[in-house]
Amino acid sequence: MTDVHNVTNALASISDHWQPHRLTSINDYDIKLVKIQGEFVWHTHPDTDELFMVLSGELTIQLRDRDVILGPNDVFVVPRGVEHCPKAAAEVSALLIEPKGTVNTGDAGGEMTAELQEFDA
Amino acid sequence: MTDVHNVTNALASISDHWQPHRLTSINDYDIKLVKIQGEFVWHTHPDTDELFMVLSGELTIQLRDRDVILGPNDVFVVPRGVEHCPKAAAEVSALLIEPKGTVNTGDAGGEMTAELQEFDA
Repeated sequence: MTDVHNVTNALASISDHWQPHRLTSINDYDIKLVKIQGEFVWHTHPDTDELFMVLSGELTIQLRDRDVILGPNDVFVVPRGVEHCPKAAAEVSALLIEPKGTVNTGDAGGEMTAELQEFDA
Repeated sequence: MTDVHNVTNALASISDHWQPHRLTSINDYDIKLVKIQGEFVWHTHPDTDELFMVLSGELTIQLRDRDVILGPNDVFVVPRGVEHCPKAAAEVSALLIEPKGTVNTGDAGGEMTAELQEFDA
């Protein structure tokens, strides 16, 4: 198993939406890849910021007071405690950075809560 | 000032080599962009892992027992305490993730030590 992780190859192996996969980790943070299509659930991470980096497609991060539109190579950090809801009309690939153990649906829970997946070696 | 940070545009404003610029932060971690050409200095970060994501070019991270070759979209984490020395024959653009306050030359110091730069708003 190599310890070099190619983002393009890793994305090619993801077929489901809203299912984060762990690319690698640095200290107690996970670097995750996810494919997004449709609308998520409104939620908050009370204890951590969340970084989105769009790799392909156009992602809208709805905040309660505005929409943040992200295209390829755009990076946006949702500050801790800020309610947000991602949505995408067409498929988006994105890289996420969050502390280990961060749940995708934050304080909201519900059926879109997904366990972090590992890539096959 | 926008809080959306475009990696491509930010890179276009960097002209010097080995000078990390802070793109954004998540909690107590900085997301940095850097252009690399030539050979750095051998050094270690005793207290933290360091993540390299190559955006363009080919980067070699020399370890004491092997060379790790990284192309575009390759991600590699140098574990804490592991001595390493990046080099690139031609210019490389890379994204780095490290805890705030991490010095680029780690425990080695010397003339390649660079203060983290901010992008102009």
